[in-house]
Amino acid sequence: MTSPLDQATIDLLGVLAYGELTAFERLASDARLAPSLGDKHELATMAAAEFEHYRRLHDHLVASGVDPKEAMAPFVGPLDGFHDSTPPNDWLEGLIKAYVGDGLATDFYREVAAFVTDPPTRDLVLEALADTGQASFAVGKVREATAADPALAGRLALWARRLVGEALIQAQRVAVERDALTELLVGGSGDLAGIGRLLARLTDNHTARMQALGLQH
Amino acid sequence: MTSPLDQATIDLLGVLAYGELTAFERLASDARLAPSLGDKHELATMAAAEFEHYRRLHDHLVASGVDPKEAMAPFVGPLDGFHDSTPPNDWLEGLIKAYVGDGLATDFYREVAAFVTDPPTRDLVLEALADTGQASFAVGKVREATAADPALAGRLALWARRLVGEALIQAQRVAVERDALTELLVGGSGDLAGIGRLLARLTDNHTARMQALGLQH
Repeated sequence: MTSPLDQATIDLLGVLAYGELTAFERLASDARLAPSLGDKHELATMAAAEFEHYRRLHDHLVASGVDPKEAMAPFVGPLDGFHDSTPPNDWLEGLIKAYVGDGLATDFYREVAAFVTDPPTRDLVLEALADTGQASFAVGKVREATAADPALAGRLALWARRLVGEALIQAQRVAVERDALTELLVGGSGDLAGIGRLLARLTDNHTARMQALGLQH
Repeated sequence: MTSPLDQATIDLLGVLAYGELTAFERLASDARLAPSLGDKHELATMAAAEFEHYRRLHDHLVASGVDPKEAMAPFVGPLDGFHDSTPPNDWLEGLIKAYVGDGLATDFYREVAAFVTDPPTRDLVLEALADTGQASFAVGKVREATAADPALAGRLALWARRLVGEALIQAQRVAVERDALTELLVGGSGDLAGIGRLLARLTDNHTARMQALGLQH
């Protein structure tokens, strides 16, 4: 069966599906660090929502005649690399990783999704990117913790900066290896100046998230 | 709001809910050990099914006017104790833990559920105990691995024995601390001879699972 999807779209669905699957695993693992049953419940609920996104992307690939394992395979190295290089040391680092890391990924995927030509795929991707509740939960918990212990803020701000650095390293790897995906992005934004503006938008959103956490002024 | 549920039933729902929540966390974490994307998919799917069971037990407690956090709290120590004392060293140990550990727990809960007097609660408990697919998946993978490397069987059989030992230690803790739950069980089976027969049934089922795995003859 030939797929109606082009290689760039398959790549996008593959990286998104494996991203959701690893997000699921990591959030569920981090639930073990939760200081209370209520916090554990919140994190496990978010993890389950990520799995539901994964399942829909997976099923969409199957329905489009694409083997999800093949679509995800090129992104296992970069995404595992990101997670292996950034294991959270405690509950707060885990929350920040969920919020900052997933926020950055979500912004990026949303930019790319705009260039997807297959309408059902575009709708599904945008749906998979819907916030699962990390945002307000993480912001509330981090602000509470830094209010109680202001010295925490410095360490957590450094942690967030490290997350962004590691994410950029892995994104670079993907860009070099996946021509179709990179083309979709460069083609979509028209020129290299467009890429520059895209990076500026990603950076602005990241700064807004750091401000929401109270970790940047 | 007073709950229509008695303490024994609340205890049962509490231990079952926290059991599903920890099973979810552990299966999702163990998915990281999966040797292939297909295996990871299977394990993550099972984990998500456990979460769905948890969510329904949680919601049933809320609808019955019981705070799920309070219902689960007495069982956090024993269940975390079991999991902390039995971290799987590899993918196969994780699979056996999912199969043998959850099998044992499921048998036990099913016995207790028979004595629950509230029909909607009993139906929900039996539903939460439905096999999520661990059984045939784990059996297939373990048999495949021991066929390829027969020396594995000894180590894996010892691992399964250790799991049962640790589970009994924690079950003992629960029995001592939770009078209502223990009463439900002793009262339900009528007498201590009934408890003996119950333990015999649990042991028989465990032996059947070990035979299915090819780890006992």
